[in-house]
Amino acid sequence: MSFYDQLQFDANNLIPAIIQEQKTGRVLMVAWMNRASLEKTLATGKTHFWSRSRQKFWMKGESSGHTQTVKAVSFDCDGDVLLIQVEQIGAACHEGYQSCFFRTVQNDGTSYKITEPQLQTPGEMYGAKK
Amino acid sequence: MSFYDQLQFDANNLIPAIIQEQKTGRVLMVAWMNRASLEKTLATGKTHFWSRSRQKFWMKGESSGHTQTVKAVSFDCDGDVLLIQVEQIGAACHEGYQSCFFRTVQNDGTSYKITEPQLQTPGEMYGAKK
Repeated sequence: MSFYDQLQFDANNLIPAIIQEQKTGRVLMVAWMNRASLEKTLATGKTHFWSRSRQKFWMKGESSGHTQTVKAVSFDCDGDVLLIQVEQIGAACHEGYQSCFFRTVQNDGTSYKITEPQLQTPGEMYGAKK
Repeated sequence: MSFYDQLQFDANNLIPAIIQEQKTGRVLMVAWMNRASLEKTLATGKTHFWSRSRQKFWMKGESSGHTQTVKAVSFDCDGDVLLIQVEQIGAACHEGYQSCFFRTVQNDGTSYKITEPQLQTPGEMYGAKK
């Protein structure tokens, strides 16, 4: 049986994909896939997503060079979330951090701080003038 | 500034939370929170969620005993996903697996297999007659 039969795409035909760095276990980001981007991800071994804001198909790293090579694809008991293990080149976050989850809530339960170094500025990643 | 101001709840006032086992880096599950369940999670140190299917507030482990003690709460660059590090008691998945992501796609890109042992049956977890 195809694993696609186990998946539950939402009303917009999308499913969220958690991207995890295989060698460190670090959760890097979450992005959305439709069936075509998932098929492309499996066929090429590089992550492809669907941008809800831009309504556009994109390959991770297509402009920054920070691509993700797929190592394993799992899915949860409800079939409505994907977990993809990758080898990440450079920063995963478009803000230049290794992981998009670079802010952590403090012990007071309301304030937060940045808990990892910024590897690059967005300008350095995308070549934009600052 | 409160971290709540950085969060983007969806049209149903919910945000997905990725639950990760801190000591192993294993991604255990994904569930949904509204603001009240997030506040309860931070106040009690045990994960609380909102069930979309049952339209009900619930504490993880309230029937199985498989609670999650919160170690850290992070959020992503868009503020629309939470990442919560926990100490997990027992199986996180209601199907008796350590992680809900117990099925992995095989090299042919379509078939899948169960890639971890089932620690308990759902009947053992919830005391239901089989």
